[in-house]
Amino acid sequence: MSLLAKTYTQRAEAHTNAAAVRLLRLMDAKKTNLSVAADVTTKKELLHLADALGPYICVFKTHIDIVTDFDQDLVDQLEKLAEKHSFLIFEDRKFADIGNTVKLQYSAGVYRIASWSHITNAHPLPGEGIVKGLAEVGMPLSRGLLLLAEMSSQGSLATGSYTLEAVRMAQRNRDFVFGFIGQQRMDVPEDFVYLTPGVGLEAKGDGLGQQYRTPEQVILDSGCDVIIVGRGIYGSGDIAANAQRYREAGWNAYLKRTGQL
Amino acid sequence: MSLLAKTYTQRAEAHTNAAAVRLLRLMDAKKTNLSVAADVTTKKELLHLADALGPYICVFKTHIDIVTDFDQDLVDQLEKLAEKHSFLIFEDRKFADIGNTVKLQYSAGVYRIASWSHITNAHPLPGEGIVKGLAEVGMPLSRGLLLLAEMSSQGSLATGSYTLEAVRMAQRNRDFVFGFIGQQRMDVPEDFVYLTPGVGLEAKGDGLGQQYRTPEQVILDSGCDVIIVGRGIYGSGDIAANAQRYREAGWNAYLKRTGQL
Repeated sequence: MSLLAKTYTQRAEAHTNAAAVRLLRLMDAKKTNLSVAADVTTKKELLHLADALGPYICVFKTHIDIVTDFDQDLVDQLEKLAEKHSFLIFEDRKFADIGNTVKLQYSAGVYRIASWSHITNAHPLPGEGIVKGLAEVGMPLSRGLLLLAEMSSQGSLATGSYTLEAVRMAQRNRDFVFGFIGQQRMDVPEDFVYLTPGVGLEAKGDGLGQQYRTPEQVILDSGCDVIIVGRGIYGSGDIAANAQRYREAGWNAYLKRTGQL
Repeated sequence: MSLLAKTYTQRAEAHTNAAAVRLLRLMDAKKTNLSVAADVTTKKELLHLADALGPYICVFKTHIDIVTDFDQDLVDQLEKLAEKHSFLIFEDRKFADIGNTVKLQYSAGVYRIASWSHITNAHPLPGEGIVKGLAEVGMPLSRGLLLLAEMSSQGSLATGSYTLEAVRMAQRNRDFVFGFIGQQRMDVPEDFVYLTPGVGLEAKGDGLGQQYRTPEQVILDSGCDVIIVGRGIYGSGDIAANAQRYREAGWNAYLKRTGQL
C-alpha cells in the first residue's frame, strides 16, 4: 500500500516520534489537516485566534517572538487552549545556528520554547549539529522537529542539492525529525510528515516574495499532509467560516488522496 | 591600491551604509578588530561582559534570546555601555524567514531588536524578500545588515552556488547589506566587511559541529576584517587578559595585511 493511500492513523502506527504520533492521530480524530499561522503581535489576538480557531485545526503555528506583550501567562493560557481544543503548538522558530547556540535558544531565554511548543523547526543549513543540539533538549520532552527542505518564497536558495541534503539529515535523525516544512513530498521510503505554508484559496502573493498554492495542489498533487494558512483565515471576514472553508478544502483533498471520497 | 592593503578608515570613506562607516572608523580609532560573542544566559553576566570587555572590542555580539531575565532595562544599560566604551551592538539573530515575518521579528516582539542593535544578520536562504523586509525596518534607523554566505560549522550547506547567490544578493542591496559573516573574503569588486566567527587560539571544536581557526588565518590568509571570539575569552581565566591577547593577535594580523607592521 503506497504511503499516500494510507490514512494518518495508519501512518501513526509506524511512527516512533511521540509528537508525530500525537499529530497524526488527532488529525483523523478531529478530521482536519489545517494549521493556522497565527502571525499576530499581541497576546490578546493570539489567544483569541487559538480559542476561536482551535476547533478547526490540528496545529496552531506561532511566531512567539513577534508578540510584544508576551509573558508566561500567555504560554500557560495557550497550553490550556491546546488541551481544550486538542491541537498541537508549533513554534515556527526556524532555528538556523550552530548546535550549542540553538540548544540555548530552544530551552532558555524569555521564551523557553521547548517547555511549551510540541513541534518546532530548523534549517539544516548549519549542518547536522543543529539537529543534535535541538534533540538534546527536545527528545527528553517528547518534542518533534521539522526541517525546512525548501521554502515557498521567491528566489529561495533551498533547492537542488540543498534539499537533498536536508532529506538525508532527516533520514539519519528520525527519532527526533519527523517531517518537513516543504512544498512537495520527496521520493524516499521513510514516512515523513509534510507541513506546507504558502497556502491560499485566492491570494497570489504579498509583495515581499511570498507565493501561494491551493489546498488541493498541496495535499493531492504534491502529497503533503498539513496546510498552513495565515492571513487567508483571519485577514478579513468571519474567521471561523474562513477556517471551516480551508479545513474542508484540505480534508476533501486528503479523502480523495486516500480513496475515502 | 588593493582592498586588503587599505586601512579600515580608508575603506570607511567609500562606504555608504551608516553602520559600516561607524564600525570601520571606530576599529582604527580603538585599534581593535575584535568582537566578543557574548553567549551568556543572564542579564548580569551579559552586562558584566559588555563593561569588562568594552574597552577591547569593536563589536559586542549578543544572542538576546538566550537571556532568561531579559528586560527593557538590560537594553537601556547595554546601550549606555556601547556609548561609554564606543562599540557597536550586533544581535546575532540569523533571521531566516520570509520578508513579512522578519520585519515583525526585527521591529516588534519583546526584544524590538531594531531599536537597539546597530548590526544584525540574516540567512539569504529565503530569497531576497528577507533583505527587503529587514531593510524596511532597519534603513530608517541607520542599521546595517550582514548576510551569512557561509558557516563555520561542520557539514554546513552554505557552500558553492549558495555562497555565490548570497554575494549577488549583497551586491544588489549595498545600501543596507554592508558585509558578511563568513570564513573568507570573496573575489568581488565591492568592499564588503567580513566578520568571522569560529576563531580560537587553542580550541579545536566543541563537539556540536563548531570548528575553530586562528586570528592570523582569518585576517591575514582569508582577508576577513573582524574576529569573533566567545568562550576563548570568557570560558576561563582573566577575561580582560584573554581579550587583550585576541585583540593583539587580530590587530597585528591587520597591521601586517595593510603593510603597517
